[in-house]
Amino acid sequence: MDLVTLRRDVHAHPEPAFCELRTAALVLAHLRELPAEIRTGALALDGIPAYPDEAALARFAGLAIDSGADAGDVTALTREGTAIVAELAGSRPGPTWALRFDMDALPVTEAGESRHLPAAEGFRSSYEGFMHACGHDGHVAIGLALAGRLADRDFAGKVRFLFQPAEEGGRGARAMLGAGVVDGVDRFAALHLGLDLPAGTVAAGITGIFATTKMRARFTGVASHAAAAPQDGRNALLAAATAVLGIHGLPRFSTADTRVNVGTLRAEGNVNIVPALAELTCEARSRDGAVNAELTERVKQVLRGAALAQGVEVDIEETGGSTSLDCDGELLDAVLEAASRTGHPAVRLHQMGGSDDASLFAEAVQRQGGLATYTVVGGGNPAPHHNPYFDVDEAALPVAVDVLEALVRG
Amino acid sequence: MDLVTLRRDVHAHPEPAFCELRTAALVLAHLRELPAEIRTGALALDGIPAYPDEAALARFAGLAIDSGADAGDVTALTREGTAIVAELAGSRPGPTWALRFDMDALPVTEAGESRHLPAAEGFRSSYEGFMHACGHDGHVAIGLALAGRLADRDFAGKVRFLFQPAEEGGRGARAMLGAGVVDGVDRFAALHLGLDLPAGTVAAGITGIFATTKMRARFTGVASHAAAAPQDGRNALLAAATAVLGIHGLPRFSTADTRVNVGTLRAEGNVNIVPALAELTCEARSRDGAVNAELTERVKQVLRGAALAQGVEVDIEETGGSTSLDCDGELLDAVLEAASRTGHPAVRLHQMGGSDDASLFAEAVQRQGGLATYTVVGGGNPAPHHNPYFDVDEAALPVAVDVLEALVRG
Amino acid sequence: MDLVTLRRDVHAHPEPAFCELRTAALVLAHLRELPAEIRTGALALDGIPAYPDEAALARFAGLAIDSGADAGDVTALTREGTAIVAELAGSRPGPTWALRFDMDALPVTEAGESRHLPAAEGFRSSYEGFMHACGHDGHVAIGLALAGRLADRDFAGKVRFLFQPAEEGGRGARAMLGAGVVDGVDRFAALHLGLDLPAGTVAAGITGIFATTKMRARFTGVASHAAAAPQDGRNALLAAATAVLGIHGLPRFSTADTRVNVGTLRAEGNVNIVPALAELTCEARSRDGAVNAELTERVKQVLRGAALAQGVEVDIEETGGSTSLDCDGELLDAVLEAASRTGHPAVRLHQMGGSDDASLFAEAVQRQGGLATYTVVGGGNPAPHHNPYFDVDEAALPVAVDVLEALVRG
Amino acid sequence: MDLVTLRRDVHAHPEPAFCELRTAALVLAHLRELPAEIRTGALALDGIPAYPDEAALARFAGLAIDSGADAGDVTALTREGTAIVAELAGSRPGPTWALRFDMDALPVTEAGESRHLPAAEGFRSSYEGFMHACGHDGHVAIGLALAGRLADRDFAGKVRFLFQPAEEGGRGARAMLGAGVVDGVDRFAALHLGLDLPAGTVAAGITGIFATTKMRARFTGVASHAAAAPQDGRNALLAAATAVLGIHGLPRFSTADTRVNVGTLRAEGNVNIVPALAELTCEARSRDGAVNAELTERVKQVLRGAALAQGVEVDIEETGGSTSLDCDGELLDAVLEAASRTGHPAVRLHQMGGSDDASLFAEAVQRQGGLATYTVVGGGNPAPHHNPYFDVDEAALPVAVDVLEALVRG
Repeated sequence: MDLVTLRRDVHAHPEPAFCELRTAALVLAHLRELPAEIRTGALALDGIPAYPDEAALARFAGLAIDSGADAGDVTALTREGTAIVAELAGSRPGPTWALRFDMDALPVTEAGESRHLPAAEGFRSSYEGFMHACGHDGHVAIGLALAGRLADRDFAGKVRFLFQPAEEGGRGARAMLGAGVVDGVDRFAALHLGLDLPAGTVAAGITGIFATTKMRARFTGVASHAAAAPQDGRNALLAAATAVLGIHGLPRFSTADTRVNVGTLRAEGNVNIVPALAELTCEARSRDGAVNAELTERVKQVLRGAALAQGVEVDIEETGGSTSLDCDGELLDAVLEAASRTGHPAVRLHQMGGSDDASLFAEAVQRQGGLATYTVVGGGNPAPHHNPYFDVDEAALPVAVDVLEALVRG
Repeated sequence: MDLVTLRRDVHAHPEPAFCELRTAALVLAHLRELPAEIRTGALALDGIPAYPDEAALARFAGLAIDSGADAGDVTALTREGTAIVAELAGSRPGPTWALRFDMDALPVTEAGESRHLPAAEGFRSSYEGFMHACGHDGHVAIGLALAGRLADRDFAGKVRFLFQPAEEGGRGARAMLGAGVVDGVDRFAALHLGLDLPAGTVAAGITGIFATTKMRARFTGVASHAAAAPQDGRNALLAAATAVLGIHGLPRFSTADTRVNVGTLRAEGNVNIVPALAELTCEARSRDGAVNAELTERVKQVLRGAALAQGVEVDIEETGGSTSLDCDGELLDAVLEAASRTGHPAVRLHQMGGSDDASLFAEAVQRQGGLATYTVVGGGNPAPHHNPYFDVDEAALPVAVDVLEALVRG
Repeated sequence: MDLVTLRRDVHAHPEPAFCELRTAALVLAHLRELPAEIRTGALALDGIPAYPDEAALARFAGLAIDSGADAGDVTALTREGTAIVAELAGSRPGPTWALRFDMDALPVTEAGESRHLPAAEGFRSSYEGFMHACGHDGHVAIGLALAGRLADRDFAGKVRFLFQPAEEGGRGARAMLGAGVVDGVDRFAALHLGLDLPAGTVAAGITGIFATTKMRARFTGVASHAAAAPQDGRNALLAAATAVLGIHGLPRFSTADTRVNVGTLRAEGNVNIVPALAELTCEARSRDGAVNAELTERVKQVLRGAALAQGVEVDIEETGGSTSLDCDGELLDAVLEAASRTGHPAVRLHQMGGSDDASLFAEAVQRQGGLATYTVVGGGNPAPHHNPYFDVDEAALPVAVDVLEALVRG
Repeated sequence: MDLVTLRRDVHAHPEPAFCELRTAALVLAHLRELPAEIRTGALALDGIPAYPDEAALARFAGLAIDSGADAGDVTALTREGTAIVAELAGSRPGPTWALRFDMDALPVTEAGESRHLPAAEGFRSSYEGFMHACGHDGHVAIGLALAGRLADRDFAGKVRFLFQPAEEGGRGARAMLGAGVVDGVDRFAALHLGLDLPAGTVAAGITGIFATTKMRARFTGVASHAAAAPQDGRNALLAAATAVLGIHGLPRFSTADTRVNVGTLRAEGNVNIVPALAELTCEARSRDGAVNAELTERVKQVLRGAALAQGVEVDIEETGGSTSLDCDGELLDAVLEAASRTGHPAVRLHQMGGSDDASLFAEAVQRQGGLATYTVVGGGNPAPHHNPYFDVDEAALPVAVDVLEALVRG
């Protein structure tokens, strides 16, 4: 299956975090044809926050099987988790590379108008309400194509492919690290398509990636009839609303750029009942990991203070996170050289406005003495990431394969 | 079908506001056996706020037919609405009575433990997530039993039965008034079971009923990536949270007891997106109708101010409401006398902590020169109204039928 | 000195809470001419919140001496406090009465236009920024006139006069109780002029007086430059603002009418400094003492939660308070009879919209088995209490003396 | 008078914004001994926000005269304002320089312990509550010393000295620009001591200066008794508190670093009165002038929304402001060269964390085709700017004079 066909197949079957069952089964099927050492279940399932429940997994398992995935593989992946690691050994000694390809899609409803190419060309999402709106479909295709090229083993060292679930929300990398997937790695590179870089242009690394912490806070109070006994209630929604204002009111830091957001809030019930339950999700970010950690503590303090004021309980869970990332100069040079050799335009660094938990892999590799970078290939996106009209120019796909191939072949 | 059997049948099939299709079909079936003039579609469908959509109606229509309702009736009721009016003419001239019996259930999941009598005795809700948690199941049974007794026409004047949808949320009475259902009425009585009165005790009327306005506010802003471009967002959730605090902070009135509540709030999206949509439901109340009107205006002003501050739009809809109610002394005397004649203990007035849109019928009747009251029969409730463990002592059912019968027979 | 002259003299020299030095010296001078047992320093000075500092006392001592008060008395009163108790023994055995007359003025600037009678007649406040805007000037005159009349000792029992400082803000009565001023008292009556009752009409007692708690909260954070290091600040003003919203958002109680208010807030500093200090004053009230106590706790919880959220300290002080009051029927009868005997129109009960710490005296007397009431004499006020145009019809003064005299003479 | 004596004299007599009467008289006295063209009243007095009232000016005029200033000069300066411009013409043609020296002190109470050098050496502030806590005392001394050195006229072009009032709060430069003080200027340099640079080190220019807008908002509502008629009030404090939270909750911008602060809030009144008045001061900042302008608009929108929600009026006044500043490379080179020639260590750029309305002069000069910079000389500050322990190492004073002299002599 060629790059474009592969990408479109994945695009049409978008699966959210940890539910990438069809995608992982597809990856497995391709990898099994290569001289690769394959590891499934490459993640520590215990302690993953907000891991999908059985019903959600069963739903996507059914969809996967219905759309052609191997039932046995899907069943095993449902049990073990969707992370897959494959290692190809080169014909001569050398460094161990790890390359990260993320697989998850987003809870976004894909645009259906013909001006949106996937709709016009017939590979729009067939799973309504979900969409590959961040380019991970392309990442999967690139990873598999690269593995195919490297099957000749004509390189030094080893190349380990990390097919990662749940990049969105920042939970997959941490769980894979818990399974030791970068043990022994000397060089790490993540690849991302898009990011507002011109189509086909390579950025050897990025700056400004945000360290981030995602949180969920559940306020639990006491319901009561809002007319007959309002004083008997303990108002979870008032606490949550106070927290929303408090979180947004946290100070800017002069030491590093920061962000805060409360993305969702839900207090269900009845118009005439004092709300006993309210749940919000929020995030802190900073270009600096330590500042993000401090900001995260302040967010929690706001949540606790708001709960105390209303006499309700609050349960705060860190549901994900990632760190900042300094790309290593030596690796930047190597990527630039690889781009040059393969004839693709390249810049040394590209400013990134968001977060990616590939930073956790990078940090781990750097801590064990290795080098890391985060390489971008521009995708000429017609709409921003996470938007219903997001798309990637497919001409970017072979560029990414070329450059990564040149990089690891050295 | 006896009172208890009837009540339990209704209890087991709880239908929410305007979806009372099985209940109304049951009412119709019973009424058709009586010498009554029956009117279906007795409500003005235009302009009912948040009227259920076709999918919701279809769902409950299906359930109704599956559980034995006449398919033709259900189809007609789906089209015309669930309000039913029936009038019995007495054998001699006299006043026209209107008696209100509400039929709707609540979106509450009924308790399943055996300490909850409906669960123990096998008539717990078969529509999961819905429950007759306010006694309307008993009201329906009482209304039908009373109609049966009065089929002898041995009374003066006329008795009109108002089987009302959507009392909860305060939308049904207004819509029925729009269809002229109290035209020509001289005496109005609503009946309610429970309200923390001792089981079997009659209260001839109530005091302290709240006038109320229910509102829904939809804030519409602009989404943006919370890290890459927070300044491009217009934060609907921040506006809503500010409004929650502002509404609860509205002043107490020295002129009349008031209440405010924000019962629900929902801002969906993603943790890393500035929320573009937030919707809340809220209510104002006062023992005094004019104060409720002023408080309602202030709630709206808070909503508008919060929207202005965040640069978002707000759309405010009044989704329901009812007024206060002064029971007429002459009618209170008559109920007390009826209770005395039938040997049931009675008090003149009972303090009510909530609202009921029967007040709109009462107001309309009083305005045309008639008399009105709101009579309560204690139900020995083991748990508060709207609670998953709410229940009514069935011994209260015949008490209510006795007293109303004695009342209209004079 | 006649009633009107006395009242005008006091009116022209208004002294705020605990600074009533000239007033107390005047009271002393009058009482010394009577066969009364006089007690000065009749209050427990320790632990009075926000007691005036030496500078404030010295300022009003100077003013008092300059305007004719005895320097020795003023010096002693400055040291001992301004509460004065005087007891007259009747010629025959009987109950011990205590009558409360409060002496303090308010920090209000008195109107100067000729439509304001004190200005037109030349007895407007000579202490700019302070004003007898609640009728206590009349109370002092009434108390002294009554003592003069009772100097004949032609009554049964004893009559104890409580000349009280600091009624406004609710601190004087508590401090006098700490000095045992109602020990042995069988009957207690407070007197108040005005309260929107028609001039000269007597109300034997009141209903609806609010129990109240006055609080001061000081938030202490950390200052920092708002541009150079906002993250180093801990924002006391943000905490205080959050508390303002939280306090106003506390629930209405269905069990008793309540009130909350934040009356003042002050955060000084510079526009470019994160505020390290913010101080607010607030109050809770309820018609029911226990509800007021619970509401007070909730106010404190809001203050603590707001502080926690911002990482600042909060110091909460109860600066005053009073309780609710149920007037005893027997005493109401006695006042009505006294009014009848002296030919003044009277009503049994008058609704009061505020608080008075005379309630603490009343509560103490009732607890020791005695009776209490709070009697009002209408003053035909041309403007509300605490308003710069407040005044009392002086025709009300002799009415009050008559009725109290008749009451204690029996 | 030598540099240190001069600086200490100014330090001991700190005068706040637009009240720099003694300082300006001192400046005048020194300048009059030089061959300079002197202009007093060099500012447009009309429309200066929050200009001191007559009482404040009279107070500082009195203090100035009492401490030795010429009464005639003080009287004239009181009338004309305290800005002074002096121009020295060089002996040969060349560019016109303008150098800015600001003169105002801060409302800070200076530390009195001996560890604070001004206290130990006897030149602590003699105007209690005011302090030169930002180094402007040194600026004045440096300006006068430099003028003295340049009195030989051995330089090309002209040097214009701008002795500026009211730098703090950002009002002086705008008012001087209104009087045309940089007309014809080719080169502009402001000088600042301190800013956490090592003592004696020169920074040729700065980066990161914030554009800023200072605002005052006055909320006007309606007072009412908080117990008797809370509903009649329109709560200005609730509006202000809501605005405080709203302002702090404004989004971070991804396009430029921003700051917001509410520095002060004052709602006076009584604990039992619904506050009718509340006043706050706040500021917006950004490294980018356009972003600051947008942020300022959003602050105003929050203020207006908060007012609307509470039904109160809000009056918003911009009380000051300044812009961002890009130092010109050519001038940076010139300063570096001047430092090198005079043997002082220098860096090209220093990061500045605050604002200075010298940016308005710079902008005006750049707009007319000239060059501008903002030069810093490190002062080894033992405490941050605006702190009661702030001080400047006096060894920095001659460094500044040397470098500026070398700069303008070329």
